[in-house]
Amino acid sequence: MNDTLRIAMIGHGFMGAAHSQGWRVAPRFFDLPREPEMAVVVGRNADTVAASAHKWGWGASATDWREVIARDDIDVVDIVTPGDTHAEIAVAALQAGKHVLCEKPLANSVAEAEAMAQAAEAAAERGVRSMVGFTYRRVPAATFARDLVAAGRLGQIRQVRAEYLQDWLTDADAPLTWRLEKEHAGSGALGDIGAHAVDLTEFITGQLLTSVSGVMETLVHERPLLGEGVGLSGTAAAERGRVTVDDVALFTGRLQSGALASFEATRFRTGRKNALRIEISGSEGALAFDLERLNELEFFDATDAPLEQGFRRILVTEHDHPYLAPWWPPGHMLGYEHGFSHQVRDFVVAVDEGVAPRPSFADGLHVQRVLDAVERSSAAESVWTSLAG
Amino acid sequence: MNDTLRIAMIGHGFMGAAHSQGWRVAPRFFDLPREPEMAVVVGRNADTVAASAHKWGWGASATDWREVIARDDIDVVDIVTPGDTHAEIAVAALQAGKHVLCEKPLANSVAEAEAMAQAAEAAAERGVRSMVGFTYRRVPAATFARDLVAAGRLGQIRQVRAEYLQDWLTDADAPLTWRLEKEHAGSGALGDIGAHAVDLTEFITGQLLTSVSGVMETLVHERPLLGEGVGLSGTAAAERGRVTVDDVALFTGRLQSGALASFEATRFRTGRKNALRIEISGSEGALAFDLERLNELEFFDATDAPLEQGFRRILVTEHDHPYLAPWWPPGHMLGYEHGFSHQVRDFVVAVDEGVAPRPSFADGLHVQRVLDAVERSSAAESVWTSLAG
Amino acid sequence: MNDTLRIAMIGHGFMGAAHSQGWRVAPRFFDLPREPEMAVVVGRNADTVAASAHKWGWGASATDWREVIARDDIDVVDIVTPGDTHAEIAVAALQAGKHVLCEKPLANSVAEAEAMAQAAEAAAERGVRSMVGFTYRRVPAATFARDLVAAGRLGQIRQVRAEYLQDWLTDADAPLTWRLEKEHAGSGALGDIGAHAVDLTEFITGQLLTSVSGVMETLVHERPLLGEGVGLSGTAAAERGRVTVDDVALFTGRLQSGALASFEATRFRTGRKNALRIEISGSEGALAFDLERLNELEFFDATDAPLEQGFRRILVTEHDHPYLAPWWPPGHMLGYEHGFSHQVRDFVVAVDEGVAPRPSFADGLHVQRVLDAVERSSAAESVWTSLAG
Amino acid sequence: MNDTLRIAMIGHGFMGAAHSQGWRVAPRFFDLPREPEMAVVVGRNADTVAASAHKWGWGASATDWREVIARDDIDVVDIVTPGDTHAEIAVAALQAGKHVLCEKPLANSVAEAEAMAQAAEAAAERGVRSMVGFTYRRVPAATFARDLVAAGRLGQIRQVRAEYLQDWLTDADAPLTWRLEKEHAGSGALGDIGAHAVDLTEFITGQLLTSVSGVMETLVHERPLLGEGVGLSGTAAAERGRVTVDDVALFTGRLQSGALASFEATRFRTGRKNALRIEISGSEGALAFDLERLNELEFFDATDAPLEQGFRRILVTEHDHPYLAPWWPPGHMLGYEHGFSHQVRDFVVAVDEGVAPRPSFADGLHVQRVLDAVERSSAAESVWTSLAG
Repeated sequence: MNDTLRIAMIGHGFMGAAHSQGWRVAPRFFDLPREPEMAVVVGRNADTVAASAHKWGWGASATDWREVIARDDIDVVDIVTPGDTHAEIAVAALQAGKHVLCEKPLANSVAEAEAMAQAAEAAAERGVRSMVGFTYRRVPAATFARDLVAAGRLGQIRQVRAEYLQDWLTDADAPLTWRLEKEHAGSGALGDIGAHAVDLTEFITGQLLTSVSGVMETLVHERPLLGEGVGLSGTAAAERGRVTVDDVALFTGRLQSGALASFEATRFRTGRKNALRIEISGSEGALAFDLERLNELEFFDATDAPLEQGFRRILVTEHDHPYLAPWWPPGHMLGYEHGFSHQVRDFVVAVDEGVAPRPSFADGLHVQRVLDAVERSSAAESVWTSLAG
Repeated sequence: MNDTLRIAMIGHGFMGAAHSQGWRVAPRFFDLPREPEMAVVVGRNADTVAASAHKWGWGASATDWREVIARDDIDVVDIVTPGDTHAEIAVAALQAGKHVLCEKPLANSVAEAEAMAQAAEAAAERGVRSMVGFTYRRVPAATFARDLVAAGRLGQIRQVRAEYLQDWLTDADAPLTWRLEKEHAGSGALGDIGAHAVDLTEFITGQLLTSVSGVMETLVHERPLLGEGVGLSGTAAAERGRVTVDDVALFTGRLQSGALASFEATRFRTGRKNALRIEISGSEGALAFDLERLNELEFFDATDAPLEQGFRRILVTEHDHPYLAPWWPPGHMLGYEHGFSHQVRDFVVAVDEGVAPRPSFADGLHVQRVLDAVERSSAAESVWTSLAG
Repeated sequence: MNDTLRIAMIGHGFMGAAHSQGWRVAPRFFDLPREPEMAVVVGRNADTVAASAHKWGWGASATDWREVIARDDIDVVDIVTPGDTHAEIAVAALQAGKHVLCEKPLANSVAEAEAMAQAAEAAAERGVRSMVGFTYRRVPAATFARDLVAAGRLGQIRQVRAEYLQDWLTDADAPLTWRLEKEHAGSGALGDIGAHAVDLTEFITGQLLTSVSGVMETLVHERPLLGEGVGLSGTAAAERGRVTVDDVALFTGRLQSGALASFEATRFRTGRKNALRIEISGSEGALAFDLERLNELEFFDATDAPLEQGFRRILVTEHDHPYLAPWWPPGHMLGYEHGFSHQVRDFVVAVDEGVAPRPSFADGLHVQRVLDAVERSSAAESVWTSLAG
Repeated sequence: MNDTLRIAMIGHGFMGAAHSQGWRVAPRFFDLPREPEMAVVVGRNADTVAASAHKWGWGASATDWREVIARDDIDVVDIVTPGDTHAEIAVAALQAGKHVLCEKPLANSVAEAEAMAQAAEAAAERGVRSMVGFTYRRVPAATFARDLVAAGRLGQIRQVRAEYLQDWLTDADAPLTWRLEKEHAGSGALGDIGAHAVDLTEFITGQLLTSVSGVMETLVHERPLLGEGVGLSGTAAAERGRVTVDDVALFTGRLQSGALASFEATRFRTGRKNALRIEISGSEGALAFDLERLNELEFFDATDAPLEQGFRRILVTEHDHPYLAPWWPPGHMLGYEHGFSHQVRDFVVAVDEGVAPRPSFADGLHVQRVLDAVERSSAAESVWTSLAG
């Protein structure tokens, strides 16, 4: 019997650091049924990926992901590359019988995401697991919000407001990175952060969006190039390059129950750094969450005595709150990367127990379809658009 | 020369109490060029309007507004009746040479509002003044927000989010009042509170909306009647009546500069009692306001030293903040009705100085056109819709 | 039978404006058993008091308070002069059979306050009522806090923290006013604002302080004189005068139950404008209030489900909250001066019903004894000091 | 040359987990001049310490700290045992030439702390380093607060308020642990959490306390024993044991500049889980910090334009904020244990560079003297008491 789970991570940018921290820390706090071994990290440049391997504690580095996937001694492939490469890597890995954890968004197009979901379904029949990395589901306050909704504490859900607000493009001279190029990023604010708002809404409410109306907009159309390697398109000759994705996406969606949800994803809300916020209003209560205060959940209980009602600031740091048991005493805060430990914990347990982890590739495909419908609606004067096309 | 300004108020519901407080209190704190005299209040029922007159300190009461408007000794007509009666009263009063202060929304339809704006324009040529009561402009924090935008402290405006959140219809058994009947109220959340969000956006940004995309929805379709006099429709025989207005309105608009603004007006956001909120994001700063904390304005100055930037909670209670000079020392809070004193102050000064007060009937007509465009967009699958029709 | 209650107000500074607003507005919102008539306001300078009478709506003005007290047609004497004059006026008024409402602090010394409390007791036997103006008890959130404690929602009270933070002396060149002169003000931060913190603590907990340990300190010892009339001492020759009161008072007290309460009164907490705050911690819950957000009360219910506990932000604006019924719909905010209307309401009802209003002069005397014990403790190296002396 | 720094950790309770996380994570994010090797963890029970070693990633475990200290291949001794054992271990380790990182409080008595400081001073002459673990100094917002004060952004410091509020003893049936036994813990709230408030005050202001006045109190005198091993005293026969430390400590102190600081340390503030808060008021600005929102620092700049002043909520997550460079993008939050990585970073750099790390044992001794003076003042009716004795 094999107690170790050998991990290969493909990609080593910002998300690579976060995933590495998850693999390293999770087994120190959670009693995992199998011990992850940080076997190998893969990047295009041998020197830089070797440096990452050393820095983040991977046992080895490599430059050819296909070779790594083909290795017998790898159990899990963790994909943290830009979205345009997810489909190829993930499908290959699943076909090679590797469990796959893939960063969000699942892919840059519905077609790619469909291929991935099909590959995942086929692999599942062979006991191979797959999961997409909507990590914010695993912020304890968000998980606890889901629990409260599932327990009926909100009654019937009437409205949802979800927004993901950043401001790093407010400066019109912020540089053109691959995240602003459609060929690599697929979309801009919509896919990068709006996807989180959609997933969190569906996760907490337990309902899927069925149709949308939306508008996407680019506010600053040209940005400075910073030489080779900054933008991936290699337009080093020109001094400025074209922003080909949206800076702002505003959309409204309808949930399965018929309730309306409104969304905003933007990189232009001055002063808001990483404000993934959701407020869910129900017939018996309401919940409000803000990632900038990630250890807190606000809960309004409409069944409290009428004169005593108010939004409660719950510090989601009690021993019995989701994921909290192995961490610190009440009132000791968790941070951004703890979600990645929780993700590792859930993924490893699912692999060990032979059950399908969530969010599945099918969940990721659904989010992709929402994003696609928003793009179609935006292109059609914001007319209501069904996910079905 | 006449130092007194004799006021007739038509209507005496909730808004009548607020306007009465404005007329009574303003002269005690502001040095007004003319002294308002609370001459007469008009209602349909002689007994109840007499009681209101006594309670609120009006010199007399009457039941026929036409007679009152015809009186020579009345200088100002203050209209606080439901929206479906505004046009008839206001036009008659203006034609009779009375200055008119009319509660919002200006009217229940664009056609009525157009007639009123025309009457106002004609009256202005004869020195007769008119103003619509978007009182929240005169909350000091809102006025100060406008001043900051006008002074360029936000740079170029990039995005606006405006919402007016209430929850008094969350209870599915809340009764059917005239505010839920289209024939009297014109629309529901859209016209009653969405109108404030639109006016506040245009006031603070100094820009008008030019087109919109939106959706309106009724969540609870039937509500209990409470016997005669509750609903104005007189459907006393039935036990439940039909809600014929929207409970929720979600819309996106484009400002003259091209910037996007998104709006939400709802009576179903559980736990939110009177949250008129606006956040304006610009290239050099941002502002956030919430009517539930009306003495505060949050200001983010993007020109502060980079490491020291953050939203400042400004207590808008300093002597030199708008309207604050005659009130209390710093840190002593104002409440809801102070805006009505500020409105009286500005209206009386404008009448005395012979200048046109704002918001004008033309401003009110513009808001009406925005609401109308939202209704048309909602009826057409949320397609982008120009105000021009 | 006399339905009117004729009021004489002695003094017409900042507090005079607030009291006038209370007398004028209360009868418009509350159904009072007797109608207050704002008969006469008294000041030392005939011209300025006449201007105040006109501005604030008093029927007449006068300069000799003894003459006014002697008038048969005056029912109530409302004292808003500096603290060094309270005793003489109040005792004379009570002896003349007038009901007395006296601003806080009751007096500048325990001896004066004792004389006043004795006069009040004697007068009460003749049906003459007296009350001291700790208005902040009548902020609805504070009254509701008292109600929650009285209903046992906090269980056994374990600790209290009360502070009154201002910053208007932070500027070392802020002028020397009578409030900074011991002969007129009695003490500085301690008596002016610390008194409120003490009264609010005793009011909400329902317990008296029995002993204290404290320290008082003057941070800026000399301040500019602004010519005649600024300081009352008339030291116009010198350019700077001596601050003879405390800028900061820090003290700890023991309540009757033995629980500890800690206090801070200061005019040097930069950025805090009028932050009267209290937090009460009990075995089953806790309450937190801040006058800078006076429409809110935070309540922590330790009997809520363990994972759902948190401080609730209650908007104390519901119809059934204390004093709220006649005001506005939920979510419409009250301001500073509403407390003065509530004070008028309670005073008039008590006078009409022939019951003793609270806070009584005896309550005011007790607060004075607390302040005196703090002064004695401060003078004795902060040693614990009994109120009994 | 030796690139590795071999660490032995003595103790393996809650603090052991936090320190382990610091040793493990710091080298993955910071470029450390020497690589820490988690060599051995020491505990009294061979089985449980072996389990801790496995769980937290230490290379080995041991039960005799003296043997471990005597080993040549150990460079650093990290002490996380209860306070009554610190002195013996630390002095022995320093004499053995090991660099020492010792959890706070430095010791349970001034005498022990003096011995430790002397040993540290002697060791420093031989190039052996020592540091005490007041980790909260290394929360980025706290470090940045210190930087702002040092840069003069607050002007002259006028007042300090520091409090550390918890509520875990609110339940009168919470069990008796070693933290409630004077022989092991030294003191209760005072030494455990009040020590942090004192250190943070002195760290941020750059000033030491010179004298204090205070009161300590035990609110619940007996608590249930939970059988062997819970209390360390081994009073298993009885069902309840005596609480021999303070539940609450309230004290006032004078800083070197003469400014007053007031303190509260308590385990009875219902609803407050881990609220280490400090507010510093100066002539040109103010700062407020709350550990329950540890990524935020509030800053009031009194030199801003007068109408624009307000407390700014700075998200201390920018790349150039203290310690932030190697972590996540702006707006991605850090948690409790990040301070332990920062502590490791600073300690390793100091050892490598041969400079004295802070807070030194002398700093820890000073805090101990403050606590001792508070105990003496409390025993003497709160009379002002000099640190010198």
